[in-house]
Amino acid sequence: MAHIKVPEGVPGIRSLVMFRPETGKHLYDLAQILLRGESPLLEAERELIAAYVSYRNNCTFCWNSHAAAARCLYGDEKNIVDETLKNMQRSNISDKMKALLNIAARVQVLGKEVKPEDIKAARELGANDREIHDTVLIAATFSMFNRYVDGLASFTPTDPEEYNAMGKRMAEKGYVMPPQSK
Amino acid sequence: MAHIKVPEGVPGIRSLVMFRPETGKHLYDLAQILLRGESPLLEAERELIAAYVSYRNNCTFCWNSHAAAARCLYGDEKNIVDETLKNMQRSNISDKMKALLNIAARVQVLGKEVKPEDIKAARELGANDREIHDTVLIAATFSMFNRYVDGLASFTPTDPEEYNAMGKRMAEKGYVMPPQSK
Repeated sequence: MAHIKVPEGVPGIRSLVMFRPETGKHLYDLAQILLRGESPLLEAERELIAAYVSYRNNCTFCWNSHAAAARCLYGDEKNIVDETLKNMQRSNISDKMKALLNIAARVQVLGKEVKPEDIKAARELGANDREIHDTVLIAATFSMFNRYVDGLASFTPTDPEEYNAMGKRMAEKGYVMPPQSK
Repeated sequence: MAHIKVPEGVPGIRSLVMFRPETGKHLYDLAQILLRGESPLLEAERELIAAYVSYRNNCTFCWNSHAAAARCLYGDEKNIVDETLKNMQRSNISDKMKALLNIAARVQVLGKEVKPEDIKAARELGANDREIHDTVLIAATFSMFNRYVDGLASFTPTDPEEYNAMGKRMAEKGYVMPPQSK
């Protein structure tokens, strides 16, 4: 049961933004621009960063839903998602993506963990300022979402099918505020 | 020097939102509603939560600026701010605020660290759902801001006077997007 009175049976962050839509609106808008707005990173890559950080933060709701969205967006290459979560360095993503996920992993620990050599390594593999910026902000944003979702113990479904449906909706429709409870 | 090319001499998050205003807008809107919008917590108390989490995340820019804002808002009781950062349990804040800051400290570590007994302790001291919600979301949000600011190594002023001026502006004007660089 959640730590505060939120709509029953509504999973994860959806129940929290229904509790307080005034802040929820900005959280959804941020997710939408960051994961679906213009970026040199593919939507699939951005969802993978979100899933990877959430997995490292042990946020079951967030990593399962964003991994499902990433699988939809990777299409035929969807195995990449679970390979990356299990062992990023040995997965079939590009070396540039590995360098960006390394930066995301540092951010997940703490901002100051990102060292000039991490940035240099990413640049040498072709990453530009916008890719580095978006990687850091996605990793920071999911460090927030993970804490919001778990910090209030919001409802976490256990049926994988539910996450598949969620991921499909997120991949196709993006981040749209749920109907408000008030 | 920052890890990416942002406007020179502009401190902290301001330089980052000038680099990417499309995401920056939502970050400022979130800070504004969370720290200045309607809440059962005083603005001073919310700034104190922000400073406390940022201090624990060792984010020099964020904790100094939000501590300065909190000092302005506490007015005659401004010593409370530095007492709390130094030793929260021995500071002169109310027992309810101590219980809420304990929850914020758990969130700073990770969402799952918040235990039912932490929530129970806060409720027994009079905290309601909205106060618990706002505390968790402020702590989660600053876990994001701290990582964004330090993860890109944005400019961190060292002159205390600069933070005093910043805090005064934040206390009086709230969170307003800086003029855009494009």
